[in-house]
Amino acid sequence: MIRHFEEELNELKEKLLYMGSLVETMIHYAIKSLVERNEGLIEEVSKHEDEVNKIQIEIDDKCLKLLALQQPTAIDLRFITSAMKINSDLERMGDQAINITQAVVNLLKEPPLKPLIDIPRMAEIVRKMVKDSLDAFVKKDADLAKSVLLKDDEVDGLKDQIFRELLTYMMADSKSITRALDLILISRHLERIGDHSTNISEDVIFMVLGKDIRHHKEG
Amino acid sequence: MIRHFEEELNELKEKLLYMGSLVETMIHYAIKSLVERNEGLIEEVSKHEDEVNKIQIEIDDKCLKLLALQQPTAIDLRFITSAMKINSDLERMGDQAINITQAVVNLLKEPPLKPLIDIPRMAEIVRKMVKDSLDAFVKKDADLAKSVLLKDDEVDGLKDQIFRELLTYMMADSKSITRALDLILISRHLERIGDHSTNISEDVIFMVLGKDIRHHKEG
Repeated sequence: MIRHFEEELNELKEKLLYMGSLVETMIHYAIKSLVERNEGLIEEVSKHEDEVNKIQIEIDDKCLKLLALQQPTAIDLRFITSAMKINSDLERMGDQAINITQAVVNLLKEPPLKPLIDIPRMAEIVRKMVKDSLDAFVKKDADLAKSVLLKDDEVDGLKDQIFRELLTYMMADSKSITRALDLILISRHLERIGDHSTNISEDVIFMVLGKDIRHHKEG
Repeated sequence: MIRHFEEELNELKEKLLYMGSLVETMIHYAIKSLVERNEGLIEEVSKHEDEVNKIQIEIDDKCLKLLALQQPTAIDLRFITSAMKINSDLERMGDQAINITQAVVNLLKEPPLKPLIDIPRMAEIVRKMVKDSLDAFVKKDADLAKSVLLKDDEVDGLKDQIFRELLTYMMADSKSITRALDLILISRHLERIGDHSTNISEDVIFMVLGKDIRHHKEG
């Protein structure tokens, strides 16, 4: 028996929001493990990744079933194909959070290089981008999606600032090089998570307005 | 009038292969511009990106039309939804090639740090991964897709080797730090391109065997 289409779509939305909240938590714990120098939190990130991977497969299955059985058209079709892309983006954000924890493992073996201000700030902006891009998707809210695109510049600015500051540490003292490199890589992983949120937001705008804003900077 | 489904699918395959060849060329030129210190090639990479972006939108449109008008099921459905994901992967590989050229622009402003051996080698492996993952897709060849997954370890090994070598340069001479950093970032961008090929190959294996090998290391 085919269940009511709306009901199936709602279930899909809920699964995506749940996956998004898992990814947000992974980012939060990954950065918290760095700031608080708490290795126990790294394990939490791994546990969340197992769950993300499980949900990813469930979401893909659900989308394929909806396409095959309900044969949707117009915005429903775009909603489901977008959900499949967003599903990949979320999973890869989770991978980036894991990459962050790998750098944290190195960093916790040495004394802190400097007080961390910009990286936690960057992480908070990026987390908000993840949340907003997904909310924009389930609410079909193109304006909220556009607000995410604007935050990307802020993230890039922070990334450059972090890079310049850490470069001065590396130049001044070769003993700081490996730690500075790991912090630079963490900022790059956060940037990639922001990029995935941007990709999601572009999909949302396409889905809602039916127009493709990718590769048109003026948006 | 709805054209014959097979004909439409073949057109989709050809477009994806064309997009793949553009991305391969972007990677090749980006690394060639570095090795030969030829700034003119950087512009070629940008031109190719414009074309990649155009084709990306065409492929997405084509997939949506096929889903809406032909309402495919089983392997045809998975083929089209995979094509949409692969389309995103290819476009992001192009972005990584652009990121490489941004590092090259910095590097060409200074004298070469060292003869480059491992980065061009890594680039060649990654290019082959791009080609093989796409060939595996259009030929529905799960074995070829699996061979791509195996190359990922080789890429990771080269990335680590490049990192360790450049770290010794940075430690020995602070004047080498910015150049070494740019070379490290280039190796990371190549690694990301390899990751996208891995993602494509996993999609192919899922499509062909109908089983999801994501998140099962033993493959």
